[in-house]
Amino acid sequence: MNSSFVVGIDVGGQTSKIGVVDARGTVLAQTVIRTDTYSEVEPYIAELADAVNKLIKDSGTEGKIRGVGVGAPNGNYYTGTIEAAPNLTWGRNKVEFAQLLTDALELPVVLTNDANAAAVGEMTYGAAKGMKNFIMITLGTGVGSGIVINGQVVYGHDGFAGELGHTIAVRNNGRTCGCGRTGCLETYCSATGVARTAREWLELSDEPSLLRGLDKIASKDVYDAAKEGDKLALKIFEFTGKILGRSFADFIAFSAPEAIVLFGGLARSKEFLLEPMETAMNENVLGLWKNKVKIVFSELKESDAAILGASALAWEI
Amino acid sequence: MNSSFVVGIDVGGQTSKIGVVDARGTVLAQTVIRTDTYSEVEPYIAELADAVNKLIKDSGTEGKIRGVGVGAPNGNYYTGTIEAAPNLTWGRNKVEFAQLLTDALELPVVLTNDANAAAVGEMTYGAAKGMKNFIMITLGTGVGSGIVINGQVVYGHDGFAGELGHTIAVRNNGRTCGCGRTGCLETYCSATGVARTAREWLELSDEPSLLRGLDKIASKDVYDAAKEGDKLALKIFEFTGKILGRSFADFIAFSAPEAIVLFGGLARSKEFLLEPMETAMNENVLGLWKNKVKIVFSELKESDAAILGASALAWEI
Repeated sequence: MNSSFVVGIDVGGQTSKIGVVDARGTVLAQTVIRTDTYSEVEPYIAELADAVNKLIKDSGTEGKIRGVGVGAPNGNYYTGTIEAAPNLTWGRNKVEFAQLLTDALELPVVLTNDANAAAVGEMTYGAAKGMKNFIMITLGTGVGSGIVINGQVVYGHDGFAGELGHTIAVRNNGRTCGCGRTGCLETYCSATGVARTAREWLELSDEPSLLRGLDKIASKDVYDAAKEGDKLALKIFEFTGKILGRSFADFIAFSAPEAIVLFGGLARSKEFLLEPMETAMNENVLGLWKNKVKIVFSELKESDAAILGASALAWEI
Repeated sequence: MNSSFVVGIDVGGQTSKIGVVDARGTVLAQTVIRTDTYSEVEPYIAELADAVNKLIKDSGTEGKIRGVGVGAPNGNYYTGTIEAAPNLTWGRNKVEFAQLLTDALELPVVLTNDANAAAVGEMTYGAAKGMKNFIMITLGTGVGSGIVINGQVVYGHDGFAGELGHTIAVRNNGRTCGCGRTGCLETYCSATGVARTAREWLELSDEPSLLRGLDKIASKDVYDAAKEGDKLALKIFEFTGKILGRSFADFIAFSAPEAIVLFGGLARSKEFLLEPMETAMNENVLGLWKNKVKIVFSELKESDAAILGASALAWEI
């Protein structure tokens, strides 16, 4: 048996992306199913297994699959479970995800959270290739993170390490977070956080802006306005970048990474975020790291990245 | 040759402690030399080497020493150098410490910073025995840290990881730190920080306190006053513990440790620090870690601990 392919699955709140990947990181075939049509995990797993088996068959890799890597919100590497994932319709209680999928596919399955999967993908195929120490920050609906030390993802004592989106960025009068606390980094620096800043600032000032009068503001609207030179939109990215950079300064004191690697929808606003982020990071970091830590952006094709990251885990099985 | 002993050296600003240690962590013999009588490193190394050789001879372990472990401020594990150590009279520039000592002793030498050495000591012989994931915090003149993940000290890309005393505890109007920035954890939660809190609060209020009228306040005075039930002193420890606990909550989000291990002069105020520290940590930590991470105190005899920590490094040579 020549097991030279892996399957990567990226479980998102709405959809699950599945791909068959070779050792060079080429996605040979991919498909998508809905994640949110079930309130119980079993029928979802059944549909997922069907889709995986069909994809393996269609790509001619039957009998050649080494294993399956899954990135999912709150996925635990040690236990293979998903716990208390508010964005998964079937994941609010504890779900034995890896075991269920192993049983359905008769293939080894390894699971971790989506940001850790992204870190492995970046290290195996992307911007962090060759790096042994870096911090992956995913700027999406929330802020996720995957920390790599000595070439290994940090899982910690319980498998849940790397929740940097939930470190406290604003200690007093911080914004309420979905986690029940206030001031978390992700309430400011996620796509949602950027939209929130826009809404707050529009209400607090009379400053003219292209964002005024929009029915519902998303981070993409802020990006589009910044592109047009809208001053308020530019200030929003400056503010967002500054908070990120300040937090990065503290993260660096922890693990002294070679780089911070950014990925996710909001990272596409690189042209507006990079400069304030770098400035704040270097202004706030301990002297010995000033101007020494790189901020780099993912080089993976966004449609493939999540699958690649998850699949990369399966090479370690 | 039966290499069953190691030498541990703890380089402090004033004195350097040297010990010969066996595999069970027994300090067979120890001695002390001054650190601060030289402005150049070479004569210091010569005196240190003489003292080490004498100690080896006196303890009857000649020819049986596997190696030498050194814990020193700003000691770099990768390069064996000490750089920009403000508290070492001969260490303000870059010093090739490990190489110089290897040449002088004709023994392998491994160097790291004092907090990392303490972490290794605690893991090998102390409160963290059997733990694979913990964070060591040393509460002394400053706040040092050693982070252990998967049983290994985190050195990071450049060898300087684990400067948690220089994460920002107070973002706005924070206290000026020796590092040139403001708001660092160590400006509040070191022995010096506690004394500073006392001086600030005495000036800002008229509250009666045993601390009033003292010529020069040290953290030990605050401890003694708290022991007498002095309300202001008790409030100072409550404040200190709260800031520590809040910071621990963020550290936990990074590496999900099993425990936070405290060591150092200020840690002796356990009876006043523990409760506010635990309360603040559990109030501020992300839900999944609430009441799950232990705060433990070093179990090593303080006079031996620094030597043991440094010596433990040498077993890995």
